[in-house]
Amino acid sequence: MSIAPILDVEDETGPRGPYRKTAETQQRILDAAVRVFAEAGFEKGSLRAVAREAGLSQAGLLHHYPTKVALLSAVVQRRDDAALVQIETTQPGVHRLQALLDFARLSADSLDEVSLFAVLSAEASRESHPAHEYIKRRYEWTIDVAATTFQEVADQGQLEPDVSPRKASSMFMALWDGLQLQWLIDPSTVDVAGDLEIFLDHTLVAPLRDLLAATVSQ
Amino acid sequence: MSIAPILDVEDETGPRGPYRKTAETQQRILDAAVRVFAEAGFEKGSLRAVAREAGLSQAGLLHHYPTKVALLSAVVQRRDDAALVQIETTQPGVHRLQALLDFARLSADSLDEVSLFAVLSAEASRESHPAHEYIKRRYEWTIDVAATTFQEVADQGQLEPDVSPRKASSMFMALWDGLQLQWLIDPSTVDVAGDLEIFLDHTLVAPLRDLLAATVSQ
Repeated sequence: MSIAPILDVEDETGPRGPYRKTAETQQRILDAAVRVFAEAGFEKGSLRAVAREAGLSQAGLLHHYPTKVALLSAVVQRRDDAALVQIETTQPGVHRLQALLDFARLSADSLDEVSLFAVLSAEASRESHPAHEYIKRRYEWTIDVAATTFQEVADQGQLEPDVSPRKASSMFMALWDGLQLQWLIDPSTVDVAGDLEIFLDHTLVAPLRDLLAATVSQ
Repeated sequence: MSIAPILDVEDETGPRGPYRKTAETQQRILDAAVRVFAEAGFEKGSLRAVAREAGLSQAGLLHHYPTKVALLSAVVQRRDDAALVQIETTQPGVHRLQALLDFARLSADSLDEVSLFAVLSAEASRESHPAHEYIKRRYEWTIDVAATTFQEVADQGQLEPDVSPRKASSMFMALWDGLQLQWLIDPSTVDVAGDLEIFLDHTLVAPLRDLLAATVSQ
């Protein structure tokens, strides 16, 4: 999985001319898709509506994303890429756990994207759903990524010994999904990042803040 | 919320004649609804298809459940009632946490129901969804019920002091939702009840098994 497309757009020294234009068009399509599918749902939202919202012909949209699954996968992947950038640009170990909490905190600003992702994951859990294989691989991948971070933490002797890095990762990601669902249902009831931190405080050998402070002062 | 309809059906000494027949018909409709909506989804599944699956006319179905939301709410409520019976027939405190784990373990036998519930919760998280108010109240209610159990545990000095009973409850329910989603996506990857027990072991002052054993030997 490449993180290049995101960096291309953000980076002023990135590609110029037609390549830059393609990247910009794709970002505009993905933004439009988030709005359309968050409002209408996966079943009812149409590629036609996304094209209209993005100011493109349907043929123009299909050139970039030939199917609904391809389009939704790209939306989810853009979000995952943003999280991955945040992890990879942070030093290994507990600091990367803090980066995940920061990402969860920022997600409060993208309700439509979180909503789209929650509905797609639930609907695509059915084997007959066209995005099922994609969502299955996507869960494997995100749990792998977070497990690598928990492994770094375990290598420092900072993970409770009764939990494997992989188990800590899958539980962390599950809690994140469940808290986001409660937050979508009633934003006033839950602090997603705060509750994820409580989970980490109970899964690490000491509260996350203490471990972060100890690393800084080394 | 009454748990009577469930007990009526299970209990051989329950109501006779027309009342019993009504309860049986309603159970048959709910079973049919689980199959239809798990297969087709909330948007595409129709009351007509549920009526056909239950061997009733559409008018016969509408007599019991006048709208799709009423029908789906009844499916969710039947499931919640079953969990509530399991809690209420168990002695207070840690034994009720074990009852919740037992219920989670049993859910592995009702994939269609778990799937229906996951999709409905995600779709109904949108404010514009007809079941939104129902799902919102339902989350408040289940978190209240579990918080009462965590309060009993806290009253025994068995809950870690940095977590309130309500916080423990909302995190437990969120983790449950998220683990069930991972399980629906790929049943081979997750042990829902086992992982919930790990969460409890880290949230209680001692592993759940030890606290249960200590209560028995008192």
